[in-house]
Amino acid sequence: MGIEIERKFLVVGDGWQKAARPGCSMRQGYLAQSGSTSIVRVRCAEDRAFLTVKGQREGLVRPEFEYEIPYTEAEEMLRTLCRNPPIEKTRYRVKLGELSWDVDVFSGRLDGLVLAEVELKCVDQPVELPAWIGAEVTYDPQYGNAVLSEIPVMPSAPAPQRTST
Amino acid sequence: MGIEIERKFLVVGDGWQKAARPGCSMRQGYLAQSGSTSIVRVRCAEDRAFLTVKGQREGLVRPEFEYEIPYTEAEEMLRTLCRNPPIEKTRYRVKLGELSWDVDVFSGRLDGLVLAEVELKCVDQPVELPAWIGAEVTYDPQYGNAVLSEIPVMPSAPAPQRTST
Repeated sequence: MGIEIERKFLVVGDGWQKAARPGCSMRQGYLAQSGSTSIVRVRCAEDRAFLTVKGQREGLVRPEFEYEIPYTEAEEMLRTLCRNPPIEKTRYRVKLGELSWDVDVFSGRLDGLVLAEVELKCVDQPVELPAWIGAEVTYDPQYGNAVLSEIPVMPSAPAPQRTST
Repeated sequence: MGIEIERKFLVVGDGWQKAARPGCSMRQGYLAQSGSTSIVRVRCAEDRAFLTVKGQREGLVRPEFEYEIPYTEAEEMLRTLCRNPPIEKTRYRVKLGELSWDVDVFSGRLDGLVLAEVELKCVDQPVELPAWIGAEVTYDPQYGNAVLSEIPVMPSAPAPQRTST
């Protein structure tokens, strides 16, 4: 089974930038969400495109199946079949020790939102939080990209808080 | 763009069987349906599997994007991510003149239902209806496979009626 084990955080300031690799621009939309059973995402990332099926999260773990698809077909699905206009972000990879963080800087209607995700090998893998990491939002459904795609204008983000592992 | 141009009919009797090729058993489920914008289907057909995105039908025409995926992943999506248990059918190909009919003989909870589909090259392509073709159900949403998958027990089918092109 394809699974994703991931934690997600708000980002405080731009301390992450000095260690970031060049960004990858992404546009993604959601074909369908079926209550709590699954979501289906279409993503264009630079010159590649993917169709991704995600199941329901249980704790940090979520089933995930991803397939590369022709870019032009993804473009067309984003334009004609998704429920909402695509969300836009630039993803920066930040490697710190053994961990590889993805910092997503949103633009367009989600301008101002910056989230960091870290993919783990197991659910109890220790995570050392860099200084630019704010409140953990792993379990906060409003920060799921599928939910964010439903929002025409981003509401004020809650004040970031420091958390510990 | 991938499109499907298709008409769908009830089947009367078994006159189609003498011209049918060996059947292909299929199991399929639906990951999600997003109102009228799109559906996403997972299908296992013999030893191959496909993920298919279909848009909203306009007349006879429907956007369709299909990707072959690993069989074991499709099996797992059918088992864990679909909204309902998969529907089961055996598809028989019946070639008559220029047209190629797919006759779907449903089993399991849809046992007794037999539907025929014909894929066309253009919306005004003439279709000669064989004697075993009953009422056209192209525009009847209750005969969409995604809708059929929602039904635990098949309601009585309406009395088939002859239609003409």
